[in-house]
Amino acid sequence: MNPLDPGEFRRQGHMVIDFLAKYYENIEKYPVLSQVEPGYLSKRLPSSAPQDEEPMEAILDDVRQHIVPGLTHWQSPNFFAYFQTNTSTAAILGEMLCAGFNVAGFNWVSSPAATELESLVMDWLGKMLELPRPFLFSGNGGGVIEGNTTEAIICTLTAARDRVLRRLGHNSIAKLVVYGSDQTHCSFQKAARVAGIDPQNFRALKTTRSTLFGLSPDTLRKAIRLDIDAGLIPLYLCTTVGTTSSAAVDPLAPLCEVANEFGMWVHVDAAYAGASCICPEYRKFINGVEFADSFSFNAHKWFLTPLDCCCLWVKDPNALVKSLSTAPEYLKNEATESKQVVDYADWQLSLSRRFRALKLWLVIRGYGVQNLRSHIRYHCRLAKLFEELVEEDCRFEVVFPRYFVLVCFRICPSVVAGMSNGHIVENGHGEAWKLNKVNRFNAQLLRNINASGQVFMSHTMVEGVYVIRFAVGATLVSERHVIMAWKVVQEHANSLLSMPASE
Amino acid sequence: MNPLDPGEFRRQGHMVIDFLAKYYENIEKYPVLSQVEPGYLSKRLPSSAPQDEEPMEAILDDVRQHIVPGLTHWQSPNFFAYFQTNTSTAAILGEMLCAGFNVAGFNWVSSPAATELESLVMDWLGKMLELPRPFLFSGNGGGVIEGNTTEAIICTLTAARDRVLRRLGHNSIAKLVVYGSDQTHCSFQKAARVAGIDPQNFRALKTTRSTLFGLSPDTLRKAIRLDIDAGLIPLYLCTTVGTTSSAAVDPLAPLCEVANEFGMWVHVDAAYAGASCICPEYRKFINGVEFADSFSFNAHKWFLTPLDCCCLWVKDPNALVKSLSTAPEYLKNEATESKQVVDYADWQLSLSRRFRALKLWLVIRGYGVQNLRSHIRYHCRLAKLFEELVEEDCRFEVVFPRYFVLVCFRICPSVVAGMSNGHIVENGHGEAWKLNKVNRFNAQLLRNINASGQVFMSHTMVEGVYVIRFAVGATLVSERHVIMAWKVVQEHANSLLSMPASE
Repeated sequence: MNPLDPGEFRRQGHMVIDFLAKYYENIEKYPVLSQVEPGYLSKRLPSSAPQDEEPMEAILDDVRQHIVPGLTHWQSPNFFAYFQTNTSTAAILGEMLCAGFNVAGFNWVSSPAATELESLVMDWLGKMLELPRPFLFSGNGGGVIEGNTTEAIICTLTAARDRVLRRLGHNSIAKLVVYGSDQTHCSFQKAARVAGIDPQNFRALKTTRSTLFGLSPDTLRKAIRLDIDAGLIPLYLCTTVGTTSSAAVDPLAPLCEVANEFGMWVHVDAAYAGASCICPEYRKFINGVEFADSFSFNAHKWFLTPLDCCCLWVKDPNALVKSLSTAPEYLKNEATESKQVVDYADWQLSLSRRFRALKLWLVIRGYGVQNLRSHIRYHCRLAKLFEELVEEDCRFEVVFPRYFVLVCFRICPSVVAGMSNGHIVENGHGEAWKLNKVNRFNAQLLRNINASGQVFMSHTMVEGVYVIRFAVGATLVSERHVIMAWKVVQEHANSLLSMPASE
Repeated sequence: MNPLDPGEFRRQGHMVIDFLAKYYENIEKYPVLSQVEPGYLSKRLPSSAPQDEEPMEAILDDVRQHIVPGLTHWQSPNFFAYFQTNTSTAAILGEMLCAGFNVAGFNWVSSPAATELESLVMDWLGKMLELPRPFLFSGNGGGVIEGNTTEAIICTLTAARDRVLRRLGHNSIAKLVVYGSDQTHCSFQKAARVAGIDPQNFRALKTTRSTLFGLSPDTLRKAIRLDIDAGLIPLYLCTTVGTTSSAAVDPLAPLCEVANEFGMWVHVDAAYAGASCICPEYRKFINGVEFADSFSFNAHKWFLTPLDCCCLWVKDPNALVKSLSTAPEYLKNEATESKQVVDYADWQLSLSRRFRALKLWLVIRGYGVQNLRSHIRYHCRLAKLFEELVEEDCRFEVVFPRYFVLVCFRICPSVVAGMSNGHIVENGHGEAWKLNKVNRFNAQLLRNINASGQVFMSHTMVEGVYVIRFAVGATLVSERHVIMAWKVVQEHANSLLSMPASE
């Protein structure tokens, strides 16, 4: 057996390329949301490993027959759920090279190209985003590719935490407080828990419609004051540009001003919306980032790069290194000792790391800045089109203002209320009962839409209001898919609204 | 621009397959350890991103000219450093499918196949390793693919920590103590630091040659007693099967007995050596795992699977879920609520996760259990061959017993001492001076060997003794490479020993 025989590698490699090309050709034929039942796969595949090798043809047949039906097709142009993780030919080629070279670039010497290309491409991307110079290597900061936002937050939070604990002693860990809003992504909560922050010291500060669900600097200041009065220590603020529920944007500059006053670390999580900031007209959303300590966005969401690729920049890499470096004898080498090189293992959680810079480099070179901007703008136009379609139908409403490519909508309360012949409130039922009824109606609508397999959207709940989330961003999406998606929504709404009212 | 145009995907995909096939054909022509200088790449590539797209042909040319020379070639059959991260055709195909489908399988519904295949293949692999049933899904435990060992330890340590803190209150975090040996991998230290364990409560217990650098249960018990007497709380023990320095094996059963007595969580880190346990004759090294709480090994080391793929099994998945789950509204779904499915985001740090089970499934099916065992055994035979070659040359010594594929050797002190005409000790220099001289000599030998580019080995230091580490495991390695590697060692030793002695 030679598992890297070049001839066999060629033959099987071409087979899989053709398999995937066909997958993209046929992708619209599959139900977007997988229709399988829990436990489906164990009924179809053996419960133990095969003793002998099986031909790749047979395995690919099984992928076709048993795996593909169990996929929710994130690359389908009819996928509008969550936020996308779109991909591209260039990035897939990057992943192929990454897996093919399979170098573990934990430090410079273990593969200089892996480290140096990452530093280079993170400076490229930083410039594309017009990040302030202190975030770039050329300005004594620097960028690193983490696996995901949770990791980016754990690393920066650990650095911030240890900066304080080195001064106050480890016992103070139980007094540290971290702040976000009630719209901050759940990654922050998990990261804080992992880093040993007392769950009682995790502040998810309330946002309201009056600030469009952005965190108010006044709210932050009040919370900090209360904590200080209680003998606690404000540590870290996680701001968000483009929240998951409604793509809300925290006002960075005034929030940083408050946080800086108390010596806190500020992180900017632009996981989804960050990609848009390569377009000058969207750059304004991260104005104020110059006052933050770290900034991250996921190229694996809306930047044509498959999982995993979370781009993190910090002003003070040394803060990361102080917390995350280990220097066992078996890794000592002259390059590290010369202090002329970056050892990325000291900027992240794990030692080993994939050569992820390749895919990012291939995406940027393979498409170029102008095309990448066009792609972002095209998705924004499609989202605007969908928004207009919603607004044209008076039974529906767009619930939040749209900044990027997320449209949050629902069937209006008046329409649902109308179904019960207007006697809701008269019935003695209050507003809460009514809201619940409207929410359940919209949830049922979404279930019906997704069960059709024609499109896939997701939902959220903000201030008790259930909304359907329609996020544009699939690589293959075009106008006809958006128009079709809206037709599917209307058809299911028609059908649901024509059913006899039930309470 | 259509970044997923099937025609263009085919054309460029075939191009990269051919590129990689040629890379494997020519891999022995490259210096194994990259010979570039720090900063080489920024001199060769532009400092800003291109405005317009560039043809893939030009990009691949740059990979050939500028990236490949900066690689340390981990897939070279002449790579004997660290521990391998070997790869295979089947696994690369798995990575291609993973990047091509690019599903974010954070919970079951987001791609049922990603979750179910992972559960299935982790049970396959668990059975191949003869893990006790409580670690398998079929025994109410379960397996998950983490990115790396650090993540596996952070997750299990967080679960163990929270189990205690829920009882004692968060303030007790500063009293928690974790234990490993002075041979435990540096990942454990980093994981403990990240999880908020006081660095002063991290115990790297001393090992000695008398136990072949395995952790002694008596040493552990004494340390725990001391900590308890000091008012601290023993929390977690990280045992190792196959340490990084010398492939030492901690005695699992007696260590678990001590740890269990004090209610601690025991993790077994078999990152490198775990793969060998699919062979019945190596399975004995993890005897006692039945008394541990969690077990991990890296398929991305010695199991033909590229980075990243750390296989973790736990007896009590619920302990992980209690610490790591988040349930934001935007992820709520009926499958999760039915409690009939696994949501792997709750078993790991990040939310999004790659479909890594594909590559593991393809490796196991593409080669079959028997071939995988043969591959492991072949590497062990090659390591034994190298060990015999070392032993035949009386100038060299094998420093530690060899259990798996790591041979630790050096030029004997007597040979180095002989260079100075035997007047070392007479000179008034003591043993420390002599040891230092021998160490420096062996370090110089390794530098010369690696600078040749013909092979790449690494080093470690145990009890003050510098040793050269020769680890077999590259997919393409064969007898002639091992014989050649030994010749390179001998040639450089000859040359260095014939030089005039210097102090």
